[in-house]
Amino acid sequence: MGDRLKFYGWGTEGSGLDEAERERLFRFLADRLGIDPRLVSPPRLTDISLRPSRVTAPGAMAHLFTADPYERCLHTYGKSYPETLRAFGCDFANAPDLVALPANEADASAVMEWAGGANVAVIPFGCGSSVVGGVEPVVGDYYAGAVSLDLRRFDRVVEIDRTSRAARIQAGTRGPAIEAALKPHGLSIRHYPQSFEFSTLGGWIATRSGGHFATLYTHIDDFVESTRTVTPAGILETRRLPGSGAGPSPDRLIIGSEGSLGVIVEAWMRLQDTPRFRGGAVFGFPDLFAASKAVRAVGQSGLYPSNLRLIDNQEAGIYGVNDFEETILILAFESADHPVDVWAKRAIELIEDNGGRLHADDRAAKAWRTVFIRMPYAREVTVPLGLINDTFETSVTWDKFEAFHTAVSTATAEAIKEATGAEGTVSTRFTHVYPDGPAPYYTFNARGTPGRLLEQWRHIKTRASDALIAAGGTITHHHAVGRDHMPWYRQQRPELFGRAFDAAKSALDPARILNPGVLAD
Amino acid sequence: MGDRLKFYGWGTEGSGLDEAERERLFRFLADRLGIDPRLVSPPRLTDISLRPSRVTAPGAMAHLFTADPYERCLHTYGKSYPETLRAFGCDFANAPDLVALPANEADASAVMEWAGGANVAVIPFGCGSSVVGGVEPVVGDYYAGAVSLDLRRFDRVVEIDRTSRAARIQAGTRGPAIEAALKPHGLSIRHYPQSFEFSTLGGWIATRSGGHFATLYTHIDDFVESTRTVTPAGILETRRLPGSGAGPSPDRLIIGSEGSLGVIVEAWMRLQDTPRFRGGAVFGFPDLFAASKAVRAVGQSGLYPSNLRLIDNQEAGIYGVNDFEETILILAFESADHPVDVWAKRAIELIEDNGGRLHADDRAAKAWRTVFIRMPYAREVTVPLGLINDTFETSVTWDKFEAFHTAVSTATAEAIKEATGAEGTVSTRFTHVYPDGPAPYYTFNARGTPGRLLEQWRHIKTRASDALIAAGGTITHHHAVGRDHMPWYRQQRPELFGRAFDAAKSALDPARILNPGVLAD
Repeated sequence: MGDRLKFYGWGTEGSGLDEAERERLFRFLADRLGIDPRLVSPPRLTDISLRPSRVTAPGAMAHLFTADPYERCLHTYGKSYPETLRAFGCDFANAPDLVALPANEADASAVMEWAGGANVAVIPFGCGSSVVGGVEPVVGDYYAGAVSLDLRRFDRVVEIDRTSRAARIQAGTRGPAIEAALKPHGLSIRHYPQSFEFSTLGGWIATRSGGHFATLYTHIDDFVESTRTVTPAGILETRRLPGSGAGPSPDRLIIGSEGSLGVIVEAWMRLQDTPRFRGGAVFGFPDLFAASKAVRAVGQSGLYPSNLRLIDNQEAGIYGVNDFEETILILAFESADHPVDVWAKRAIELIEDNGGRLHADDRAAKAWRTVFIRMPYAREVTVPLGLINDTFETSVTWDKFEAFHTAVSTATAEAIKEATGAEGTVSTRFTHVYPDGPAPYYTFNARGTPGRLLEQWRHIKTRASDALIAAGGTITHHHAVGRDHMPWYRQQRPELFGRAFDAAKSALDPARILNPGVLAD
Repeated sequence: MGDRLKFYGWGTEGSGLDEAERERLFRFLADRLGIDPRLVSPPRLTDISLRPSRVTAPGAMAHLFTADPYERCLHTYGKSYPETLRAFGCDFANAPDLVALPANEADASAVMEWAGGANVAVIPFGCGSSVVGGVEPVVGDYYAGAVSLDLRRFDRVVEIDRTSRAARIQAGTRGPAIEAALKPHGLSIRHYPQSFEFSTLGGWIATRSGGHFATLYTHIDDFVESTRTVTPAGILETRRLPGSGAGPSPDRLIIGSEGSLGVIVEAWMRLQDTPRFRGGAVFGFPDLFAASKAVRAVGQSGLYPSNLRLIDNQEAGIYGVNDFEETILILAFESADHPVDVWAKRAIELIEDNGGRLHADDRAAKAWRTVFIRMPYAREVTVPLGLINDTFETSVTWDKFEAFHTAVSTATAEAIKEATGAEGTVSTRFTHVYPDGPAPYYTFNARGTPGRLLEQWRHIKTRASDALIAAGGTITHHHAVGRDHMPWYRQQRPELFGRAFDAAKSALDPARILNPGVLAD
């Protein structure tokens, strides 16, 4: 049981917040939102009635599929707020009819070929950490059924090229398994999304995951050397190259395609040497705007720290990093080649010149890190208590940032009040920083009304997203589009790019069976 | 006259190599290749008979077009070896029927709309520095005619966002005009291809130009914040964003599209602060392979020098940097924010640890730079003398590099002998270095046979390109595909990406009038 993923929440069965973590969370819920905390048992498989599978795999392929209830439930949802809410409500109406577990490319092709002929939708599934409705089989009546195609058997680091610092990795390999295979070679992929333990390389590539580094190369896009993708039209494999100018990049069409063009089965990834030298510091600022000036200075300095995370007063307070009195900025450098003291010294100087108060120690950074890693486990505790909690992330150029932030955080706070009649919390951090602008990440909490939670959440999400798009941001910086972001993606995406992408999709997926409703219309 | 571009060679009328430069070149031709040097006058417009224009612009649009013979000749060719050869042979058989000079987007749209209806091919033209057959109107009989669409009137830096360090720049703006507009703001685009003076922002984006920096962000791809493109189907404008995870990047479809999807009319570009601190050194190595180990060490160190150019013994000798006794490595750092001594010191250490001999001064670097900038002017001197001279560039992962280099340089040298019966020269430099591999740049010289030069060139180009593709490189790292590289691009590009791109093209360019024969079939 220990390795089996929960079908309703984060991580494996039996894991979750410990008592101290739960206590801290309960205190926040009670003090800040007036929510009376208690422990609610998660849904049990036996409570869930699944619609009978509408399709049957052909006999010769039967071994590739399962209709096991646990598997169908596991593949119904990602880990978003509305999905967890419905899971706790035992609503698995959109469960896939079957789950395919191909062991190799030939299997994956066979599944697609059958599905194309049978008009069955195919939803690629890595480890199910989507928080944007990327894996739920909501495919409409046009299809005869829906199959979730799970890549879990594509779980190996196949080949390591130490000289070029690259590795060929199967798409279903999860973060820890990648690191374990690379470690003996003194290598690391240095890509740690919050979902690291329970997300896969293929998922990172399909969703343009944002990684470990706060500056410089950080999107998974930049670490992809080549990709291999099974599409209904055949295999699309790109050439391993450090760089190229030969036409538009084929990899960049695959990266971010969210399972709508094909199933990424493996990729050659650029790696890093395991860092040996580290340095950094923690700073306090009166507020977010004061801190953002320092962040911009460092972001444009060419120093490229590995960490430059900013946590506003709200967020620092809520997560127990401080008592709401400071915006926290965490600076870190790492290198496998050279001591980073000079780099850190200059960055510290820049931050102090811009009003940062140097902390005497890194307690705030450590406190933050601990809470950060455990955050995804909170949802299964808070959802049944009627807490509406969600996050969204974006990026925007520096010239627009202050107006953008004001518009988005105000709209979100107002929407909470409109939806619930009470104040909630809206807090902000920067996950990544580019020379031309930051990637702000927003978290909101509200006390919802049992029975109306989905509708209340939708109101807040809609108002926040409307404000974000109107103020010039991107609807997602690294969570992906999924089904949840489609209305705003349509506004953001150039209409003609939509047409071009749609045509490209039809070329690779003529029956249009792949992840319907995501990216393409 | 001084500002008018030569229709047969590099730069403006009246410019060219000075006497000392010519003397050095003549000495190389005589000593190394037995070519008897003399000065040959370039072709004159009056020597050229152009086919009458096959198409006429509609009256209301007549002011947007010219059939002036100079303009038609100027727009017939880029600056490649075979093109210059044909220009000197007064062969302008593929001259465009008309040259369009739109002053704005509405004009550009009108030209495309008319061309679509009249079945006339449209070839976007920046400043004509293509060396891969990207602008020659070889469009076949399917079309009623061909129009070269020149962006020269799109020549302004429209808007500067100092806070985000970005600028909105029209696509026809040449390098020096961009720098002149940015300089008063303490900004620089830091993108200096060899063609800098006579190439445009739109051309750089359309061809995935490689820039100033030898490491880190260097392809123009990384500096594009957003693009605006006029296509036959309408305007495609992307959102200004520092980073995004919202589906496959629309910009990355436009970047490298070589005029086959639309005409890029402007872009928001990421800029750099003007550097204030510099440092570096020059090193000698016994040969290329010895030097490449040091380059790899620095390339993987995370130090990211702005320059890390390697020039092999052959190339250093031919260009008078030394007497063929050393491979030269030029290292440089630059920063607007901090002294770079510590960076340079560590890189010097790495290079010396890897066998580099530190030069006492930077004479070799200066000698190289001077020759480098003037190189494009040599072609009009050497072409009429029967010198076959060309370059090609690529990139390859480090694990393959030595075998790759041996295969490619051997094939090229052998092909020279096969084609001409005599030895030529093949030399190599690295223009850019990625952590996972270098971007080698090859130059060859051969004494050809008047009357057979085109055929001899083609034999060498074909053998070299075949070897390069077979050994795992890219057919182009930054020169682009054009018409010359299409046979190898077809081998390199995943076939299914070709189909997807083709479908995308049909969505944006339904009549398929844009740059036929380039990228799409």
